[in-house]
Amino acid sequence: MKKKLYIIKIGGNILDDENQLNKFLKDFSNIKEPKILVHGGGKLATNLANRLNIKQTMVEGRRVTDAETLNVTVMVYAGLINKNIVAKLQAEHCNAMGFCGADGNLLRSEKRKHLKFDFGFVGDVLENGVDIGKFEQLLNIGIEPVISPITHDGNGNLLNTNADTMASKIAIALSELFDVTLTYCFEKNGVLTDIEDDNSYISVLNKEEYLKLKNNGVVVEGMIPKLDNAFDAIYLGVNKVTICHAKHISNILSSSIIGTQLIK
Amino acid sequence: MKKKLYIIKIGGNILDDENQLNKFLKDFSNIKEPKILVHGGGKLATNLANRLNIKQTMVEGRRVTDAETLNVTVMVYAGLINKNIVAKLQAEHCNAMGFCGADGNLLRSEKRKHLKFDFGFVGDVLENGVDIGKFEQLLNIGIEPVISPITHDGNGNLLNTNADTMASKIAIALSELFDVTLTYCFEKNGVLTDIEDDNSYISVLNKEEYLKLKNNGVVVEGMIPKLDNAFDAIYLGVNKVTICHAKHISNILSSSIIGTQLIK
Repeated sequence: MKKKLYIIKIGGNILDDENQLNKFLKDFSNIKEPKILVHGGGKLATNLANRLNIKQTMVEGRRVTDAETLNVTVMVYAGLINKNIVAKLQAEHCNAMGFCGADGNLLRSEKRKHLKFDFGFVGDVLENGVDIGKFEQLLNIGIEPVISPITHDGNGNLLNTNADTMASKIAIALSELFDVTLTYCFEKNGVLTDIEDDNSYISVLNKEEYLKLKNNGVVVEGMIPKLDNAFDAIYLGVNKVTICHAKHISNILSSSIIGTQLIK
Repeated sequence: MKKKLYIIKIGGNILDDENQLNKFLKDFSNIKEPKILVHGGGKLATNLANRLNIKQTMVEGRRVTDAETLNVTVMVYAGLINKNIVAKLQAEHCNAMGFCGADGNLLRSEKRKHLKFDFGFVGDVLENGVDIGKFEQLLNIGIEPVISPITHDGNGNLLNTNADTMASKIAIALSELFDVTLTYCFEKNGVLTDIEDDNSYISVLNKEEYLKLKNNGVVVEGMIPKLDNAFDAIYLGVNKVTICHAKHISNILSSSIIGTQLIK
């Protein structure tokens, strides 16, 4: 039987709120099973870019990353956010170690190819881009990896990478060795049928129903790539995928976590 | 017999020069022995602080670190510099992994106590602050640690820390398990008797002669704390300590590296 592994993605809006972040990290450190935390970026990168007068452009919900913006994301994601999370987790006696994809070649990507548009230094994780053996070695010596959304191309270049996709790719790859539970934590209770009503979350969602919700315009914007990534995971070997509010992570080990569970 | 371990500190002026840095990293990756790289900061942190209008104050050659300056150092040292070095080393097939002291609790420090002056968020590595076992675990699985000069206090706070001191503390602590060679690489050939003449380096220097050079004003400014750290290492268990130009690191495995070798 495969060993359990919890992979948890924490989104930007929680990172931007120190109280919510601290509570989340306390709950995370109380999960006494092997686990990996993947974090996004939040507003800090945009704030720093603004202070430095680096103009930011978003296309299809993704940040266009010129050379200066890449440096901003590396500084904020792999530096400021990652190291502060690690220090806070260490204070909670969690054996956290922070990585970007270049560290130990954990996550190799390629610069995005896009017919219509050049996204700049944005990376898409390669097939076989997750170094499963390296993750296993780290987990075997009791390390709890904290992953920032920066990868590398193997030729010395860092690339800005979507954290939702990274979490999904890591979960899928590690399913070869582990019984993986993937949980996307953010500031809502799950996939909502009414975006104004946090109680309108769908408890169980299959792909067919998701596609209907997308066609009907019930699921929109940032939720679409998040759900595409999440469904990839459930179709490609991940045992359980849930989308929930960060405050409910303390119930992750129970079968009845409040949120949207995805099924085939 | 203890296994050999090379600990190499690379200084700021080399980091600021991309050609010199690339050559150094290529030479470093060619050292086929267990090794650790400790890097300093360079001008990038000061440049970023200036662009953000954060006033910088230096006292006794150390940066006074208020909360905003701490964020700048974390972003630049643990983010931008560390991750770019790691990506470049990975491209040279070196199994580099970047860390700050908070990662895996590798280096624990305390906020500097100073009778006359508050340095702010500056950390001094504690006695027993180096997690020897964690370093050993990482080295045992073939990882080449790349350490940025940021530590933590164990209570969730990051602290800006002098890289020369960190290299010395790590070398001393790991001497318990390894036969350690510590090499400080910078932009000069070693300890010079004439600061204008790079050929005036002293090949072998003992503590008595060093104290004379300090009293005579031959050794001044930043060289004093560097040499104090370097002599600490040689007196506290490190097998060999050398101060040399970064370009000579390719000869580290030979007995005749150009530079200043310290002896008791």
